[in-house]
Amino acid sequence: MYDFYKDLIARNDSKIVLLVMDGLGGLPREAGGKTELATARTPNLDRLAAVSSCGLLEPVLPGVTPGSGPSHLALFGYDPLTFRIGRGVMEALGVNFPVERGDLCVRLNFATADAQGILVDRRAGRPKDEETARLAAKLQAAVAVPGFEIFFRPVKEHRAALVVRGPGLAEGIRDTDPQVTGKPPLPVVGTDPATTKKTVEVLTSIVAQAERALADEPKANRMLLRGISFFHPLPTLEERFGLRSCGIAAYPMYKGLARLAGMAVDDRPKTPADLVAVLRDRWADFDYFFVHYKYTDSSGEDGDFERKVRMIEECDALVPAIEALRPEVLAVTGDHSTPAVMKGHSWHPVPALLHSRYCLADGLPGFDEVHCARGTLGQRPTLHLMALLLAHALRLSKYGA
Amino acid sequence: MYDFYKDLIARNDSKIVLLVMDGLGGLPREAGGKTELATARTPNLDRLAAVSSCGLLEPVLPGVTPGSGPSHLALFGYDPLTFRIGRGVMEALGVNFPVERGDLCVRLNFATADAQGILVDRRAGRPKDEETARLAAKLQAAVAVPGFEIFFRPVKEHRAALVVRGPGLAEGIRDTDPQVTGKPPLPVVGTDPATTKKTVEVLTSIVAQAERALADEPKANRMLLRGISFFHPLPTLEERFGLRSCGIAAYPMYKGLARLAGMAVDDRPKTPADLVAVLRDRWADFDYFFVHYKYTDSSGEDGDFERKVRMIEECDALVPAIEALRPEVLAVTGDHSTPAVMKGHSWHPVPALLHSRYCLADGLPGFDEVHCARGTLGQRPTLHLMALLLAHALRLSKYGA
Repeated sequence: MYDFYKDLIARNDSKIVLLVMDGLGGLPREAGGKTELATARTPNLDRLAAVSSCGLLEPVLPGVTPGSGPSHLALFGYDPLTFRIGRGVMEALGVNFPVERGDLCVRLNFATADAQGILVDRRAGRPKDEETARLAAKLQAAVAVPGFEIFFRPVKEHRAALVVRGPGLAEGIRDTDPQVTGKPPLPVVGTDPATTKKTVEVLTSIVAQAERALADEPKANRMLLRGISFFHPLPTLEERFGLRSCGIAAYPMYKGLARLAGMAVDDRPKTPADLVAVLRDRWADFDYFFVHYKYTDSSGEDGDFERKVRMIEECDALVPAIEALRPEVLAVTGDHSTPAVMKGHSWHPVPALLHSRYCLADGLPGFDEVHCARGTLGQRPTLHLMALLLAHALRLSKYGA
Repeated sequence: MYDFYKDLIARNDSKIVLLVMDGLGGLPREAGGKTELATARTPNLDRLAAVSSCGLLEPVLPGVTPGSGPSHLALFGYDPLTFRIGRGVMEALGVNFPVERGDLCVRLNFATADAQGILVDRRAGRPKDEETARLAAKLQAAVAVPGFEIFFRPVKEHRAALVVRGPGLAEGIRDTDPQVTGKPPLPVVGTDPATTKKTVEVLTSIVAQAERALADEPKANRMLLRGISFFHPLPTLEERFGLRSCGIAAYPMYKGLARLAGMAVDDRPKTPADLVAVLRDRWADFDYFFVHYKYTDSSGEDGDFERKVRMIEECDALVPAIEALRPEVLAVTGDHSTPAVMKGHSWHPVPALLHSRYCLADGLPGFDEVHCARGTLGQRPTLHLMALLLAHALRLSKYGA
């Protein structure tokens, strides 16, 4: 969709803030009840919604539950069906690894095999994070392939990230995870032997060295490779929309996604209050600020309705300090829904509000899923949001005479 | 989108009226206030909205501010991203010049150059309209190229239209406006020398003759060519939708746009009351009537909120006389928004109502942006409207068994 816009992009001194409350959308605990957002006491968001254009955003396609990658790409104005991020790349971004163009990224699962090499646990008993960190460090010390840089990074439980950097690598390598126990891990195989020969050799060597190093581990004695994919940097927000952009987030994954879209990333936030402090500190340097608040999602993932309500209220309290900076455009929404009753992401549309000097004012009595359905922002794909942010910042010129 | 519909088109004796209040959509003067339409006393539109299907129409794409050309094409059922009208053509249509297929149309700006031929004012001091008319007449008398018909028509201030008619002309000629002062006008250059040679010769000769004729002018001594484009007639509303159609408008631009879509155009309206008188007079002859009311846009362009409110009220008063003709379908909307606070067109969605024997009745308490957001017509591209008009006139047959 945004190919059309490139001739319309105009620059000015306006500031745009996109506050993403991760997993914001929710569901009632019981039929006819209120969602987390409708339950929460959100005086600031309610006040803002009354003078904003409100709507519901559908992250990817009707009924599609997105991961964090596609849902954030949509928020940033990248069609998540066109710009696909491999799972290996997401794993590296998720630990904030500084991926470079052409890095081959792998999602790595530790697993347990018996004496015959048959898999008996594809998650190696879900090791604790300290244990995973130890395993990754052990591999980092043990594995080397001349001419290549190899990076092992712990992620969580049985998961780690593997990044291979060097000449002649290619995509098109199949997963080595057989997806079931009772079989050995698959060998490293390329879909096209002509182009993937070198890559297969390198990865096969890495697996062999790793399994030698892991041979004495009681549980994590195998390594399964998944989602083997190149890191292709996206065209940046500067290139696409003329925006000098900054990502402000406390969690590695979201810093990685912001970096992927070409944003400068400020590494300092640790707490919610830090988000606003850093925003204020960087205010002069950028046009567009992506501010990421994580806890609405993590409480939803934990199935903790009450905590999600409190986390929404905590984020509501940040809003006045953002407003005080007087951005030309302030939008508040989520990347996707994470209803506590579902303990995970969902496909439900996400409430959104857009405030600017040039927005329609819906006069809705509150900011929640049901009220937003009546707003003038409409019910539309999340992908549309970037165009509306730009328009309300007067950063799109007229089309046609 | 409408390729799909061509096999469904059915004809009957129904009458469809599309009343376009140009630039209808607006914005509140202050945060949380009412728009022009919400402020206006519109008893007739409010009464009609209560028994109509209402919605918000997005003229081109999210966040895109359209000119009159694309926004009217969308209303008439032509995808404005597929059917593009060159600026030169819009200029000729804007003065109601009877363009013919293959006419090469140019937007012409009078400019001032110093004794060295360097541009010092790209708008020639914005001459008064009488002055522009004199300049166009002077050029009309002075410029001739054997084998070609050449037409100069004044537009407004420094702007005029140039139309060249004759054999062997081609598109792909660059603007001669350097876009900045301090440089001379650019020569006439074609993007493809093989196909544009003849056109470059003709236009170069026209420019040379014009500049000789303008040599004694104190200000308008140069002529800059812009938006050089062919007039390609569109497939007509009769061909696409089986509609014998009539455009009823007081302003030249909208007569031109109606003609572009193959409408018969009635030239008589001068006042708003004339619009309805002419509609009544031509009632028996057509299926589809495009009735264009200009003053909501011009008052918005002037930034005059109060006058726009009055102009909306004036148009509201025309509605009963239109209803008295008992059209099978009556739709009221705008081509785009023109908020007085923005003094120009904007991207905001436009309120719309559609009334027929077969419409859902939303029971909304008033006709304005915020209420229409809740209607059963939905929030959708303006392009969808034509299909809904046809359907409500029972002019679309069933798809599939």
